[in-house]
Amino acid sequence: MSETHDAVDVIRTKRDGGTLDAAQIDWVVDAYTRGVVAEEQMSALAMAILLNGMDRTEISRWTAAMIASGERMDFAGLSRPTADKHSTGGVGDKITLPLAPLVAVFGVAVPQLSGRGLGHTGGTLDKLESVPGWRAALSNDEMLRQLEDVGAVICQAGSGLAPADRKLYALRDVTGTVEAIPLIASSIMSKKIAEGTSALVLDVKVGSGAFMKDLGAARELARTMVDLGTDAGVRTVALLTDMSTPLGLTAGNALEVRESVEVLAGGGPADVVDLTVALAVEMLAGADRPTSEDDVRAALADGRAMDVWRRMITAQDGDPDAPLPLARETDVVRAAHDGVLTSLDAYAVGVAAWRLGAGRARREDAVQAGAGVEMHAKPGDVVRAGDPLLTLHTDTPEKFARAHEALAGAWSVGEDGAGRTEVVIDRVA
Amino acid sequence: MSETHDAVDVIRTKRDGGTLDAAQIDWVVDAYTRGVVAEEQMSALAMAILLNGMDRTEISRWTAAMIASGERMDFAGLSRPTADKHSTGGVGDKITLPLAPLVAVFGVAVPQLSGRGLGHTGGTLDKLESVPGWRAALSNDEMLRQLEDVGAVICQAGSGLAPADRKLYALRDVTGTVEAIPLIASSIMSKKIAEGTSALVLDVKVGSGAFMKDLGAARELARTMVDLGTDAGVRTVALLTDMSTPLGLTAGNALEVRESVEVLAGGGPADVVDLTVALAVEMLAGADRPTSEDDVRAALADGRAMDVWRRMITAQDGDPDAPLPLARETDVVRAAHDGVLTSLDAYAVGVAAWRLGAGRARREDAVQAGAGVEMHAKPGDVVRAGDPLLTLHTDTPEKFARAHEALAGAWSVGEDGAGRTEVVIDRVA
Repeated sequence: MSETHDAVDVIRTKRDGGTLDAAQIDWVVDAYTRGVVAEEQMSALAMAILLNGMDRTEISRWTAAMIASGERMDFAGLSRPTADKHSTGGVGDKITLPLAPLVAVFGVAVPQLSGRGLGHTGGTLDKLESVPGWRAALSNDEMLRQLEDVGAVICQAGSGLAPADRKLYALRDVTGTVEAIPLIASSIMSKKIAEGTSALVLDVKVGSGAFMKDLGAARELARTMVDLGTDAGVRTVALLTDMSTPLGLTAGNALEVRESVEVLAGGGPADVVDLTVALAVEMLAGADRPTSEDDVRAALADGRAMDVWRRMITAQDGDPDAPLPLARETDVVRAAHDGVLTSLDAYAVGVAAWRLGAGRARREDAVQAGAGVEMHAKPGDVVRAGDPLLTLHTDTPEKFARAHEALAGAWSVGEDGAGRTEVVIDRVA
Repeated sequence: MSETHDAVDVIRTKRDGGTLDAAQIDWVVDAYTRGVVAEEQMSALAMAILLNGMDRTEISRWTAAMIASGERMDFAGLSRPTADKHSTGGVGDKITLPLAPLVAVFGVAVPQLSGRGLGHTGGTLDKLESVPGWRAALSNDEMLRQLEDVGAVICQAGSGLAPADRKLYALRDVTGTVEAIPLIASSIMSKKIAEGTSALVLDVKVGSGAFMKDLGAARELARTMVDLGTDAGVRTVALLTDMSTPLGLTAGNALEVRESVEVLAGGGPADVVDLTVALAVEMLAGADRPTSEDDVRAALADGRAMDVWRRMITAQDGDPDAPLPLARETDVVRAAHDGVLTSLDAYAVGVAAWRLGAGRARREDAVQAGAGVEMHAKPGDVVRAGDPLLTLHTDTPEKFARAHEALAGAWSVGEDGAGRTEVVIDRVA
């Protein structure tokens, strides 16, 4: 059967600064998914999109075409409204773990279809898999039942949502075209829209440990995604949040679960609590259950969020009371002199945790449950010579050397530091 | 063995507007030829080069890397200097046929490694294959012997010259990256430099029937190629020549051979003769055999060029006295009213000739020797209602309809025309 469009014509249109029409976009995404548009053709088109951009109408149609490449989920049968959160990824970003049960406390269903980590940012599923017995793979029926009964589910995304995105992402990864904002936005939003949530809060991270190092680019990405969600009928808000230093005091798998449980028990580091609460407030508002920050904080303090956590873990065969795995070896890094910790670089900590075994270099690698970096001070804290700054955890102590390399120059101790910075930088709606 | 560079880093450098260094260029061209850099990676890089450009140093290195991917020829053992000509391709461009023997008359060896046509411009080998018995494929030894004995050879380029270029050209063809001037220039020049000629004249065509429609782009391509040749030690000159209307009065295979023989017999259309003479003068000057235009014209008028032509055809088993093939069917297009032919579009005539069977749509197609378009008037000629303007030739008369479609609106007859335009527009050295 002859094709209605020609790949080279579509590529030339974008290459020459033109606008792709709906028929061109629908055809090229579908034909690429079917293998009629070759990888090398899509790669040239992706580079042309990266360099020449797409307008709001094009991105919206591109996203719709990606959604149309696969199945859609439908949460309309649930008795509760749904709200979802997506983070663009950062170091020590365990927010999904306390956030999902916290929002569920207020009668909103939270379906968190998550992934595994690759590179220096960890994956939510890798973290939860350090809970003994917990399983990531649920059938659609199991997921819907858990949303109805417990109100929160964190599980593996099925392969049926936006298959065009999976194919395109793998291509972008090897062709230097990951950094195209239209393609980043449509990749994220195609999956979130196909999931069928009615409200969505985006946590767009900016800083050394984030994908977006620069506030302007992060703002553009946030704006693009909020517009896409809005155009698709999803109530969408984005928070721009700081990722110049890690979130909380842990980066790793079991280490981050432990810290999340501390937050659910009413404690935990202030930045993790603040961001969890800020995102919960947004999700509840988006799902038509407006709730004050004080009321949200109360659900952490009084154990209601912890109750949902325990039921959520149990429903997926995890044991919330089992001890979390510990790494076999630790190594402590200490302050060389007295002063104030003025910086602690998120990217360096992320790479160190990854090298210690918390992350994977290739998709097929396994991760160590106990590995990672534990921090004993945050920027703004006073430290004394000899105080522990970091504890490195790993099962494979030969990895300490390369983790120390990653951390060289990653922090500074000064006479007087700038105070702590707020984790939420801005809001885009 | 691990590679010293990373394809994604090279792509990112060019994507972000940077300059590729010599090591990056050498590696990426070599690794692509070896299959280590994947097609989709080279395609993204080609698009980044198209949109962000390359500077003179980069293009020169890229060309050298393409040359290094294969073998080089060496004409140093010949008793004569060598001069070569390359045309960027146009409709009715049979200039190589009279030019090679004409230049050889003056003691300069002309090695014309040529190709077959694809699309609306014909290929020199396709044209010569309409001469009964003539063969395109020569061994290197046969070629050198013929250059020494006859002084001119037109034959098929071996597959050993710049194999990276062949691979890259096939990729560019399907990824909308043909139009990158650095890649066009390095593709042409890598083969010409690897051929080992000491002088080179480039015929850069501009107008509807040419690859470059626009004088600015044609001038940039000419400048880039002249610089590349000069940097590689080849005496290089470019002529910018008109391709808004076909060259001569024929577009086809045997039709163009017939016209070339007319030129070699001292006749033929003025534009074909003028361009042949202009290019010959440049080639002879580049090869240190400076010859006046009058002396060159004399070699056409007195039969010396025809003598070399006959020996050149005979040396490749062709019969210069055999009748040329004629198409089985013809169809005449006539002027509708009296006036002056004010335009005759090169692209339309090229497409019509192609559709009549003179060209091929896919590499594996055969061409018809007799097919093509014969013109009875050129822009500036007076025509009367009912006069024949064009004769279409084909073995397959069902093709007339689509040829007529291509010719719709392709010429205009006005009250008084602009005079003929000069074929040579400018010279770049």
